[in-house]
Amino acid sequence: MPIDRRHFLAGAAALGAVSVLPPAFAADSDLRVNADRLRQTLEALSVFGRPQGGSFADGVSRVAYSDADVAGRKYALGLIRQAGLEPRVDTAGNIHALRSGQDSSLPEILFGSHIDSVPSGGNFDGDVGSLSAIEVLRTLNDRGIKTRRPLHLAIWQNEEGGVIGSTIAAGEFPPASLQHVSSSGLTIEQGIRKIGGDPTRLQEARIPKGSFRAYLELHIEQGGNLAKAGIPVGVVEGIVSIDEYDVTIRGFANHAGTTPMPERRNALLAAAKLIETVQQVVTAEPGRQVGTVGHIDVLPNARNVVPGLVKCSVELRDLSDQKIARLGEQIQARAQQIAKDTGTEIEFQKVEHDPPAVATPEIQSLIEKASAALGLKTMRLPSGAGHDAQMMARLGPIGMIFVPSQNGISHSPKELTLWPDVANGANVLLQTILLLDSA
Amino acid sequence: MPIDRRHFLAGAAALGAVSVLPPAFAADSDLRVNADRLRQTLEALSVFGRPQGGSFADGVSRVAYSDADVAGRKYALGLIRQAGLEPRVDTAGNIHALRSGQDSSLPEILFGSHIDSVPSGGNFDGDVGSLSAIEVLRTLNDRGIKTRRPLHLAIWQNEEGGVIGSTIAAGEFPPASLQHVSSSGLTIEQGIRKIGGDPTRLQEARIPKGSFRAYLELHIEQGGNLAKAGIPVGVVEGIVSIDEYDVTIRGFANHAGTTPMPERRNALLAAAKLIETVQQVVTAEPGRQVGTVGHIDVLPNARNVVPGLVKCSVELRDLSDQKIARLGEQIQARAQQIAKDTGTEIEFQKVEHDPPAVATPEIQSLIEKASAALGLKTMRLPSGAGHDAQMMARLGPIGMIFVPSQNGISHSPKELTLWPDVANGANVLLQTILLLDSA
Repeated sequence: MPIDRRHFLAGAAALGAVSVLPPAFAADSDLRVNADRLRQTLEALSVFGRPQGGSFADGVSRVAYSDADVAGRKYALGLIRQAGLEPRVDTAGNIHALRSGQDSSLPEILFGSHIDSVPSGGNFDGDVGSLSAIEVLRTLNDRGIKTRRPLHLAIWQNEEGGVIGSTIAAGEFPPASLQHVSSSGLTIEQGIRKIGGDPTRLQEARIPKGSFRAYLELHIEQGGNLAKAGIPVGVVEGIVSIDEYDVTIRGFANHAGTTPMPERRNALLAAAKLIETVQQVVTAEPGRQVGTVGHIDVLPNARNVVPGLVKCSVELRDLSDQKIARLGEQIQARAQQIAKDTGTEIEFQKVEHDPPAVATPEIQSLIEKASAALGLKTMRLPSGAGHDAQMMARLGPIGMIFVPSQNGISHSPKELTLWPDVANGANVLLQTILLLDSA
Repeated sequence: MPIDRRHFLAGAAALGAVSVLPPAFAADSDLRVNADRLRQTLEALSVFGRPQGGSFADGVSRVAYSDADVAGRKYALGLIRQAGLEPRVDTAGNIHALRSGQDSSLPEILFGSHIDSVPSGGNFDGDVGSLSAIEVLRTLNDRGIKTRRPLHLAIWQNEEGGVIGSTIAAGEFPPASLQHVSSSGLTIEQGIRKIGGDPTRLQEARIPKGSFRAYLELHIEQGGNLAKAGIPVGVVEGIVSIDEYDVTIRGFANHAGTTPMPERRNALLAAAKLIETVQQVVTAEPGRQVGTVGHIDVLPNARNVVPGLVKCSVELRDLSDQKIARLGEQIQARAQQIAKDTGTEIEFQKVEHDPPAVATPEIQSLIEKASAALGLKTMRLPSGAGHDAQMMARLGPIGMIFVPSQNGISHSPKELTLWPDVANGANVLLQTILLLDSA
């Protein structure tokens, strides 16, 4: 019977007809996206920001507000039109497309991602979610399916610069940040103008709280958990909380030849002990928490001078903000002992606290149900990286679908999600939308 | 009796007469430099390179070949002329003055130091030795003393840039290094021209091996050993050997949010363990050896990225080059275990080996004898810093006299040697010269 139905729908799509079908029919677990077409669009998008003379494997630099970003957005706008919808650019520069449902009084299903990249990034981060979202619409068109609920596609601007577009949509963007300079070299204000927004009317880009049934985002994992476990679908439990500290270690710079070891107040030795302490404290208990010292500045940083001053970062992430608060306290307590042992002063300053964004349990279950119907194994896991979904979580239920990143590599031209995994992700997105539509 | 002699000499000096005295008489343990005059000349020299609007306490920037250096040298040349000698600038730019002795066939006694400084340095490093050397000559003039041996004063150019002037004098300067850019911004070649040398005729600046009885250098300790022990005179056992390594640690840069702790190949964590290992290995056995990681570069050095690449220095110093070779091997062996533990690759490259320059035991004893005659306690200690004496050690016997640096601070405007300590040092230099002259 499914075969018959597919034949019929293919015929209907060929005629350009859109069938009005009963809701039960929309939740068709046999429906699949056109994986070849999805791949073609991802490859076509990859041209915008590609290194000169390079290929798809050389990744992309499509930082928000760059000419490449504008070109990539133009390509996405064209795809939306090919899907029979008229795109809208809001005052923040986010791209929207609305596909009406049978019942316009029902809250819409919102889904999407971003297409901007980091400098020297890959062709999957953001692109997979955005182009799969468009592909879902085209698949529904092909089969002439009209959902009960309106479907709302969103492509958020400048995700890599700090989920800017979705933050504006959530009404949480501080106006002063318009003057921040983005990776493109433009301020965010200039960038928003460049991509067709109006920074003086950002209020109009806000999405009302409770206006959507759920926000769904398909994304590559950017970590190696799924690839390592050989599991095709990750069900995101939430986006982690982040605590950022700036640490200042004050020792005393002195001649490396003439200062006896016991007399030294070596700030870099203290920093080394701190780096090890972060590692020890974070790995001392079970869980997926991570802790990183990624940035360090040393003064005078001369081979023949005992380092007198070190500034470094400490970053802690976990789904539980209580846990990272506790780990942060442990690290600070041990730092005071390090200071004593090394004759230095160590000062912590908390410079950022991002609260966790929990994925709605009901949506997690629906993603698992959709995956099971597709015969795809799933694994629940936190997202260690930030996503636009964390901003939508301020407004309503959210769920995120992860697909594997080979070797866990991301933000790199080497970023790679295999095409079957891309197709799986798009199908899970499609099926979850259909489940949400019928639920 | 000494009193009578002093009276006689003072009278002779007042008349401008130079007495020809028997050798035994020259070794006059009651003879003292004019400490006030020495202080005045040090204060006068400090003006050249003083920060604008500053005072003596604000230190000096008199880097070699700068206008301040030229002005300081001019002042020193004037002082030499005040000492009744005609200075000579050799083709390397070193300043020389020869005071003839009773027997010109005897090898001369060579002594001196430098007057160039590091950027933002102090008023004692080099200056104390150079101006005390001139003061010794003036004291001998005052007392009308003619030594048996010729006395040869040398003020070496660009000590801080790597004992350049004395290296040329020792015939060990590689011509290619003329193109190195010095702290002044000039190449060494340009600098030598600026201070009156001739870089095309550096051979002429060589001092023949065996041409001097001994080279003596008075210098501030630049460490805190003497000040801490309350001992006014350090008898240098030698200038330490230095091994310099460049270390490259290759991990893998990855997202700090999405990369689980066990999956990381964190180059900075490996560097932290290495920094601690250097500390442990160097302090695990008794002795005065020091080990320093003073320079570190991290890539990408971003707070949200697991560091992928670290380059750092490891520097080991001790009088025994065998000891630092052995410690270097221990550190490298332990680094291989660190590499294993952290999933990184650690590569050591030895980029410099400075052999030790041992102070001649006979000269060490003479310095002790001179100090004892002055009622000054002494302590033997190595010099952890390099000095022009290390180059003179290639040519003949050497000895170094150290005076205390308060709090061990050097290469800083806070560098401080108390005036009584300066005077003690100059008196020990004078008395050691007299002992060498009579020995």
